[in-house]
Formats: sequence, C-alpha cells, structure tokens
Amino acid sequence: MGRVTARRPVRRITADGETTRPDTLVVEEPMEIRVGGASLAVTMRTPGHDVDLLHGFLLTEGVIGSRDDVLVARYCDGVDEEGRNTYNVLDVELAEGVAPPDPSVERNFYTTSSCGVCGKASLDAVKLVSRYSPAEDEVAVKVSVLTTMPGTLRASQKVFGSTGGLHAAALFTPDGELLVLREDVGRHNAVDKVVGWAVREGRVPLRGCVLMVSGRASFELVQKAVMAGIPVLAAVSAPSSLAVELAAEAGVTVVGFLRGQTMNVYSEVQRILA
Amino acid sequence: MGRVTARRPVRRITADGETTRPDTLVVEEPMEIRVGGASLAVTMRTPGHDVDLLHGFLLTEGVIGSRDDVLVARYCDGVDEEGRNTYNVLDVELAEGVAPPDPSVERNFYTTSSCGVCGKASLDAVKLVSRYSPAEDEVAVKVSVLTTMPGTLRASQKVFGSTGGLHAAALFTPDGELLVLREDVGRHNAVDKVVGWAVREGRVPLRGCVLMVSGRASFELVQKAVMAGIPVLAAVSAPSSLAVELAAEAGVTVVGFLRGQTMNVYSEVQRILA
Repeated sequence: MGRVTARRPVRRITADGETTRPDTLVVEEPMEIRVGGASLAVTMRTPGHDVDLLHGFLLTEGVIGSRDDVLVARYCDGVDEEGRNTYNVLDVELAEGVAPPDPSVERNFYTTSSCGVCGKASLDAVKLVSRYSPAEDEVAVKVSVLTTMPGTLRASQKVFGSTGGLHAAALFTPDGELLVLREDVGRHNAVDKVVGWAVREGRVPLRGCVLMVSGRASFELVQKAVMAGIPVLAAVSAPSSLAVELAAEAGVTVVGFLRGQTMNVYSEVQRILA
Repeated sequence: MGRVTARRPVRRITADGETTRPDTLVVEEPMEIRVGGASLAVTMRTPGHDVDLLHGFLLTEGVIGSRDDVLVARYCDGVDEEGRNTYNVLDVELAEGVAPPDPSVERNFYTTSSCGVCGKASLDAVKLVSRYSPAEDEVAVKVSVLTTMPGTLRASQKVFGSTGGLHAAALFTPDGELLVLREDVGRHNAVDKVVGWAVREGRVPLRGCVLMVSGRASFELVQKAVMAGIPVLAAVSAPSSLAVELAAEAGVTVVGFLRGQTMNVYSEVQRILA
C-alpha cells in the first residue's frame, strides 16, 4: 500500500553508447470505488491518499456535498494471489438520506434524452448537478502572486523529480500560500485528491481558492472546479474550447499557459489584478 | 462538425503589459457511442475522424476484431436547440454473430469477483480479452530510425502549433515511414483514432508497427497496443510501472523519454537495434 514508485531495469541508449541500470517508475494501480458494497467505478491511480481520492471523486461526481455525507470509508479486506491485502478497493457507507449514485451517473451526466448530445447539454448538466456556484466569489488574485505558483508547484512535487511521470494539482490561497498538493499518474485523480482533502477538512466550497494543475485545462477539470466551488483554475498548458465555455457560464476564472511572467486569462478576467 | 479549433478573446498578460486579442483554442465536444441504439460510452474528444475513433474504441475495448464486425456506422440525426445536427452521436450496427458489448464491460475489465482487485488481475484481464499477441512479432527497429520519429510527429501536428492543446498519436513502419497521425484533446482518443484508421484499412493486427505518442505511456495505452497487435510503443515521456509490467507480459516493447538521440527501453529490449 502506498508504494508510489517502483524500480525496473532499463536499457538507456544515448549518442555515446548504452547502459542497463535500474530506473525509477511511478506506480500505477487500479482502485475500485464501492458504495455500500456495489461497484461504482475503477480508476487507474498512483497509490496513496486514496481516501482523499474517494472523497474528491464522490464530490465532483455529485454524490456527496460534504464530509458529513460519508459515514465511513474503509479498504476491503480482499487479498491478491499471494495473500496480501491489495489496498485497491475502497468501500464507502453513505449517511442516512444521501442517495446512492446511479451506476450510470457518469454516462447520464452528458447524455440528454434526445439524440443531440452536445457541448451545450454538457454545460447545462454541470450547472444542474452542482451544489455550489463560484460565480459570486469576489476573490481577486494578483498577477505577481499567480506567477509564483508554478514554481511552488514544481518545487513541491516530490515524485515527479525521480520519475518524470506524474501530474500535480494544488490548492492555493489568494495570497499564494500552498494549502495542499497531490501527485498522480492521472490528471483527474490529482485534482480529486486535493478536492477530497478539502472535503475531509470541511473546507468545501473552496471559496477564494486557486486550483493549479501541471497540465492542460479540460472540460472535466473545470467541471470539478465548479462542483467544489473553486473560483480560479490555473494551468501550465492550454485550455480547451469547452473548458472555457463552461468556465464562462459557471463563473470560473481560467488562466492558461501560466509560465514565467506570462499568462492567458480566458474567462472572468476581472479577478486577476495587474 | 469537424471544427477542430475555435476563437475566443483572451487577456494576455506579460512582464511588458497586457493586451486582449482573439486566441485559438482546441475544440472539445462530447461524443456518444451507441451500439444498436443503446448507449455504450461518452468520450470528450476533438471532432474529426469520429468514425476512426469509433472503430478504434470498439477494437481496443474488445467488442470487434476487424472491420468486418461492423455493418454500418452513422451519425444519429439528433439536433441541438438551434436545430443543427450535432454530429456528436455515432450509432453502430454490428455484424451478425458479433456479441453486443456488456454496458459494464469497462468496469468488469479490471474487476475480479473477489475484493482483491490488483495490478496482476488487470494484466490477466487484458491477456484474456486480446485477440492478437504482439509477443511473437520479430520486428526490429534501429535506434537511428526511432530518433527520427518525434521530429516527424511534431512536424505533422497541424493543430498543436496553433493551440498547444493537443495530444498526438501516430503509426510508423519499422523504417520510420509515417502511416497515419491523429490529434485529440484526449490521449486515449488520439490512439483510438489511429487504431481505428488501421481497422478500417484492414491492417489490424498491426504487425511490425511502431505506435508513437506525444505524452506518457500509461497502462491503458499499452493495453490498446496489445489489443491492436502493435509490437512497439514509443513515448516522448515516462511510462508507469503497470504499463511496463503489462508490456513485459504481453510482449510489447516500451520506449520512453524518446528525445533527441536518447531513449529508455523498458521491455522486449531485443527489438531495438543499436
């Protein structure tokens, strides 16, 4: 459990010749999420902070709204063929009155009853499902603060340095203070882990916070920000069209290409102070 | 349909000041895959080459084995609220004798009947489902050929240059000839699009081919290579532990950090000739 890296022999080839030596790889393992014993989802993730991942997943999928909606979360005691607990199955018991998820929730989330599934229907679905609205958040973030975040993110990524194989997500205060950082082979999992941390700390909705990610800003990452009530999403790389459309509709500021002293602001630009 | 980029106003902030101007974003839209009218999956993708994406998805999920398993694939005639066809729903009719997919196939793929879901079970599941085995493929690829591939990939990425927001996947011959390249906001979609092209061309299993991807090599990308009978997967960035484990078990060569004149070879290293 919690093994984040693994060693493997690797044949390293360069212009000067080649060597075979052990290399460090990031660990990827399946994690199954069960609700009341029923399988809900399997995600390929880097072990560690699994209970955060669980809480973040349930919140961003609209199953729970706060930590009070979860009675207990525990690893099943299943074992692999060598008799060791795999620590890859988490079962959650929901509080009374919390509706268990429809197993097809993820699919229904985007699909309308007509044949015309489209971006607009996806935007409407997020707005229908979300319990929080970042739109009224009056937080302002200085450019000089935003430009410090990529460096803080990179410096705090423990595992990336040794493997080069991890995405990172982090929550910052408007003053640039790092609240939490998580790494994972999956971009969505890294975000769910920081959101899940906030759920367990009783900090959701995450008013005034900046969610920073090491990669791109897709529709699904903006969706997660909306679901957690996060007003600002900052990314090292590019956003997609639908990510910006959802952000504009839901009142999330999207910052992209945040590198060095430069950035692009795609929506709710008034929150960024020069 | 097929709109790959969109223009949005963006507030560009640099150390020298700021401007507001239109910027080019990569388009992301949902695509629903239906089999005989029943919803199978929704993926967020960049429009274009949707029929390739459909064929690649069905092959790498184990639903079909070749183009003959598909009778017809067509866009549903659903419309959005402005009366335009969304071109976001594809319905496929399978040939007689081809079993329609279990809607929960994706979930069952990783989950064993016991509580102990683990990496080993995931590896076994892929081996059980795959129709092709790259293990016996005796292809050899020269280092001097592999090192040309990232440059060819980058030079052929039409949309990345304008948006910075796309993943690419390509198929090469062992001599370094580019067979096909596809771009998408989703890494998995880019791979499904090149595999689906090969399915429709009657080229699966893809013996002797190199699949090159612009990002990392995850478990699921190796799984797709196995399902399509591809013997070599080359990535610009890092592989995960489970990706390398599956590759070693299924006989796929994984090359990582393919940059300039250097690379790491993690499995089936004999296929790479210095």
